[in-house]
Amino acid sequence: MGSAAFVKVPMAHPADTSGVKAVTERGYDPASVQAVIIKSEGNGCVNDFTRALAARAWGDELPGAVTVVSGGTEGVLSPHATLVLDVPPLLGVADGLGVATAVTPDILPADLGRRAQADAVADAVRAACNQLGAEPDAVEFALVKCPLLTSEQVTDAFRTGIDLVATDTLETMAWSRRAAALGVARALGEIDESQLTEGLAGDLAVFSRVASASSGVELAGCHVVVLARSALAGNHLRAAHTVMADALDSEPLLDLLSRVRADGGRLVQIFAKAEADPSGAVRGWRHTMLTDSDIQSTRHARAAVGGLIAGLTGDPAIYVSGGAEHQGPPGGGTVTAVWELPG
Amino acid sequence: MGSAAFVKVPMAHPADTSGVKAVTERGYDPASVQAVIIKSEGNGCVNDFTRALAARAWGDELPGAVTVVSGGTEGVLSPHATLVLDVPPLLGVADGLGVATAVTPDILPADLGRRAQADAVADAVRAACNQLGAEPDAVEFALVKCPLLTSEQVTDAFRTGIDLVATDTLETMAWSRRAAALGVARALGEIDESQLTEGLAGDLAVFSRVASASSGVELAGCHVVVLARSALAGNHLRAAHTVMADALDSEPLLDLLSRVRADGGRLVQIFAKAEADPSGAVRGWRHTMLTDSDIQSTRHARAAVGGLIAGLTGDPAIYVSGGAEHQGPPGGGTVTAVWELPG
Amino acid sequence: MGSAAFVKVPMAHPADTSGVKAVTERGYDPASVQAVIIKSEGNGCVNDFTRALAARAWGDELPGAVTVVSGGTEGVLSPHATLVLDVPPLLGVADGLGVATAVTPDILPADLGRRAQADAVADAVRAACNQLGAEPDAVEFALVKCPLLTSEQVTDAFRTGIDLVATDTLETMAWSRRAAALGVARALGEIDESQLTEGLAGDLAVFSRVASASSGVELAGCHVVVLARSALAGNHLRAAHTVMADALDSEPLLDLLSRVRADGGRLVQIFAKAEADPSGAVRGWRHTMLTDSDIQSTRHARAAVGGLIAGLTGDPAIYVSGGAEHQGPPGGGTVTAVWELPG
Amino acid sequence: MGSAAFVKVPMAHPADTSGVKAVTERGYDPASVQAVIIKSEGNGCVNDFTRALAARAWGDELPGAVTVVSGGTEGVLSPHATLVLDVPPLLGVADGLGVATAVTPDILPADLGRRAQADAVADAVRAACNQLGAEPDAVEFALVKCPLLTSEQVTDAFRTGIDLVATDTLETMAWSRRAAALGVARALGEIDESQLTEGLAGDLAVFSRVASASSGVELAGCHVVVLARSALAGNHLRAAHTVMADALDSEPLLDLLSRVRADGGRLVQIFAKAEADPSGAVRGWRHTMLTDSDIQSTRHARAAVGGLIAGLTGDPAIYVSGGAEHQGPPGGGTVTAVWELPG
Repeated sequence: MGSAAFVKVPMAHPADTSGVKAVTERGYDPASVQAVIIKSEGNGCVNDFTRALAARAWGDELPGAVTVVSGGTEGVLSPHATLVLDVPPLLGVADGLGVATAVTPDILPADLGRRAQADAVADAVRAACNQLGAEPDAVEFALVKCPLLTSEQVTDAFRTGIDLVATDTLETMAWSRRAAALGVARALGEIDESQLTEGLAGDLAVFSRVASASSGVELAGCHVVVLARSALAGNHLRAAHTVMADALDSEPLLDLLSRVRADGGRLVQIFAKAEADPSGAVRGWRHTMLTDSDIQSTRHARAAVGGLIAGLTGDPAIYVSGGAEHQGPPGGGTVTAVWELPG
Repeated sequence: MGSAAFVKVPMAHPADTSGVKAVTERGYDPASVQAVIIKSEGNGCVNDFTRALAARAWGDELPGAVTVVSGGTEGVLSPHATLVLDVPPLLGVADGLGVATAVTPDILPADLGRRAQADAVADAVRAACNQLGAEPDAVEFALVKCPLLTSEQVTDAFRTGIDLVATDTLETMAWSRRAAALGVARALGEIDESQLTEGLAGDLAVFSRVASASSGVELAGCHVVVLARSALAGNHLRAAHTVMADALDSEPLLDLLSRVRADGGRLVQIFAKAEADPSGAVRGWRHTMLTDSDIQSTRHARAAVGGLIAGLTGDPAIYVSGGAEHQGPPGGGTVTAVWELPG
Repeated sequence: MGSAAFVKVPMAHPADTSGVKAVTERGYDPASVQAVIIKSEGNGCVNDFTRALAARAWGDELPGAVTVVSGGTEGVLSPHATLVLDVPPLLGVADGLGVATAVTPDILPADLGRRAQADAVADAVRAACNQLGAEPDAVEFALVKCPLLTSEQVTDAFRTGIDLVATDTLETMAWSRRAAALGVARALGEIDESQLTEGLAGDLAVFSRVASASSGVELAGCHVVVLARSALAGNHLRAAHTVMADALDSEPLLDLLSRVRADGGRLVQIFAKAEADPSGAVRGWRHTMLTDSDIQSTRHARAAVGGLIAGLTGDPAIYVSGGAEHQGPPGGGTVTAVWELPG
Repeated sequence: MGSAAFVKVPMAHPADTSGVKAVTERGYDPASVQAVIIKSEGNGCVNDFTRALAARAWGDELPGAVTVVSGGTEGVLSPHATLVLDVPPLLGVADGLGVATAVTPDILPADLGRRAQADAVADAVRAACNQLGAEPDAVEFALVKCPLLTSEQVTDAFRTGIDLVATDTLETMAWSRRAAALGVARALGEIDESQLTEGLAGDLAVFSRVASASSGVELAGCHVVVLARSALAGNHLRAAHTVMADALDSEPLLDLLSRVRADGGRLVQIFAKAEADPSGAVRGWRHTMLTDSDIQSTRHARAAVGGLIAGLTGDPAIYVSGGAEHQGPPGGGTVTAVWELPG
């Protein structure tokens, strides 16, 4: 139980679920798909309804799966879905990569971006680990799709006097990612209680090394997908995580790829977070991502880091998500590679 | 005469010429600056007036220099100016990198994007080579800044019945780059007459391996900057060119960087062209650069390829320019590295 | 048969169909909804998937209705749906406004923007008129939602050698609107055969006064909705059409509103087309809609004309659609008002 | 002294000062130009360098004049300059419209958006009134161009521990407008001390009826231009102000235009402020200006209100500026019309 398999399929448009046929072609049951992890071609910000369209289409197609749709395929990135299946372990194969999913209750507007959201995510991550019988340090990737506050919720809060973490809808996306990432870090023992408090108060030096959080208007609770090494998984998949220190930091990426090569492995997928360095500069040189009033900074960051990783791997159908608060150090981001050992 | 020296300076905004002080700090005379090659922070398309502002400011500061301003510092790219100087050769040093500049007459609206523009650019490139005493195959980089058609020119042409290569101002940018690149290729013997004709007729398989063309509203003729190996240059600078086959093609970049490393050299600058693959896909995966009605494709391409090269070099103050028609193969682009040998 | 009733409802997001409850609250059967005419909040251009999401959601909710989703609620425009019902005529009421819908066969890629598409639309308009027993000059509004060419279709055409009207996906939107509008004009006798030929060849002086065409990626055939005066309609609805000569032309709008006021009527809806003047100027003053590489011109045009009409009517939930080729004179657009006489 | 004259000229691009010839053609001395009030074609937000380019070009051309450049000519708005001259009063003509300008000291980063900026603006407004001998209630228009905080200033403040009103550069534009508008209101006695305090604390119900504030990166102090009725002016110009209650509020505009017509006057210019209603809705209908991550809300607002006013006046070369905090009620804005009586 929890033995992972991956099927990655292109999407011709946000509602394109035709790739599901690849699941059966590979001999798997579509009902075994646990998670559908999508890069869709919207702006990845507040009014990105490609996420809603993709989530609706895949939800209709695979009602039993958890969907995580991250908007934004800037630059060379290609719209695609990574289907993660829970399949029977291979006989006689010890170890491997396990997958588990969990969903939090709906996050109340007043709780978004705050301790209550972090706690809800932490509980969900712990539940997923328990399903896998995985210790925290076996987790190689903890993906969270979390809500934002809509303009209706902000308007309601004005009327009813509810105190929100922020009233700008775009800002609430960042706050939701923050609480989610810190919840992951707490659940996995990456940070302690006082660090959680400091992180929620805004200290970006507090961060997870495996969390990847993305927010969107298309859901009210948080969807959690955990990938972890597991003695019970019984497959030839491997995963490893690292962090980029900034958006130019190719060394850890090259190290990961060397490791895959050393294994004789086939790269299955890269999951990366990216962001504009909040200091306004990278290695002493000014960037313009935070002062561009035409293009949001997360779009710039996805395009740049996506261009780097796609160039290094030769694969543009990778998962690069924008807004990396508490997911790696400021200006950097978490990276997880999944690969398959030779048969 | 023609011995190059490079000074690269940051720009805090498009009119920031304060970096000129680095020229004197390095012991050079500002009057020796031949070319100011700028990445400015506009959209790089029709209404990018950061180019005009930067050209005006640097033109006021260094009236003797030719300006080439390429808009667009998407992603991690950093606004900066590369000042190329013509300095006395070092005593006892043979070889090195030479620089020469030339300016064409104003391009008539009816000539833009056509044979007459290609011929004018070819003449200017030949003139620059002659200044350096350089054979065509010694040229490592041929940079052209060329005009576009303004909406006023289009309106005038409607009224007067002049036939233009295109009436959409954004399209005229591409046509101007096309003619300029083909003019370079013809001048350097990369293509013959029949290939020039085919290229002007739209065959993207005809291309230069050293041309880099950028169009803008801020000039009426073409500015040309040539970098070539020269027995008379007498300096420790070296340059080499390559082409990326597509936007993911990191191999030739890694090869260039290996060569710099093998020389014990210090990388001075990278000049690269980038574009959205016109087929709509890269390595079989769909990209969305050509169907994004919010962000122009050249912005996507600069961000992605800029992210890759900056990640590989660790330097975000590189020259990455969008729209690579006939500058490398379709979807790819030309790349020139300049480096300095030790001591 | 064909007696129209209108229910206009807000949409909180592109998939919001909750307004359908207003149909039953008004005493009507949801199955009587013939057309759902939507303004959704995307960019209204190639990658506007809010149209697909809204069409899918309303299609699921009201499978018997024809959907027309026009993207773009720039400025003060408000996302909403205008549901047009076919209800029993009122007893003892002669005259009124009738509604009929029709759908063309799928438009082949090679036919898009050409005579074949115009003919298909003309046939559909004639069929709708026949349903209503309406003469051409009784038609006050002929709305067409028509396809565009996707990047996949363009790529396929490259491979198979099919000749397309254009290969830039954004341009194909304009070509599709053109053929649709000219098809309407031909069906209603507004233009003759030679004018149709001239119009298809690009003469913008050939235009309809009642057509409103909008293109999108979410359908393969054309959806047609016709509103016409009808002796059989038996309701208190009235409609009248006019054209704006340019985007500043408020006079015909004020005239329409005076007429509604003179009737003691209640304005039900305004349907308007808008576009950037292709000459690059309005009344001798340059506009920047066609040289703005950050925002598409149709977005500018909707915002401006939407601001004018919303300001004059006090209602931001109006239908203003961008791209008015052959729908009114160049730079102008068609306008239809629907109002209800006092009971 | 202070008798105004207006010359309005088109601008073909942001550096186009050729219109200055109209000054001499009208028989005036260019040195008499007191203020150059420009609508330029940038995005009107943080990285709008068309403002810097226009200010530099007109500053070179007319070094004695104060420049106010407001970015953003969305929709039908046309780039232009309104030159306001100080000319000799006409003999035997009593009354008329006066103009005076003033400049504040540079605003320190820590003072921006706060009491100190409001005080500096108030002092400048009082100085301008004194020049004209105008009582506060004779002021029909008080225009302020004010600075924003650059990313460098924000970075410096992080390093040095200076507390800023905001660290997001786009937000600092709004804070600067806020303090400027409240400074005007205080100087003219529209608000008292306690209201000033409340306004600075964020109460949007506190507002001026004649202020128009625009922020930009191109200046460090505030530029102030005041138009007031004056017994000494001696000209045939008249001005009147009003406020729009929301972006649909055409009634006060129609009233102003009726007044011009009743005077037999010729409309010279309209100066208007516009903004997205901060509640997220206009007259109960949701707007999408605040949730659009592709286009900033000020761009939407200028396009919509510009479309309305241009449609009502028939003139697209009007001054419509975005971001109307404390300049009219929330969601509305101030409007001043200037007209000339017949001979």
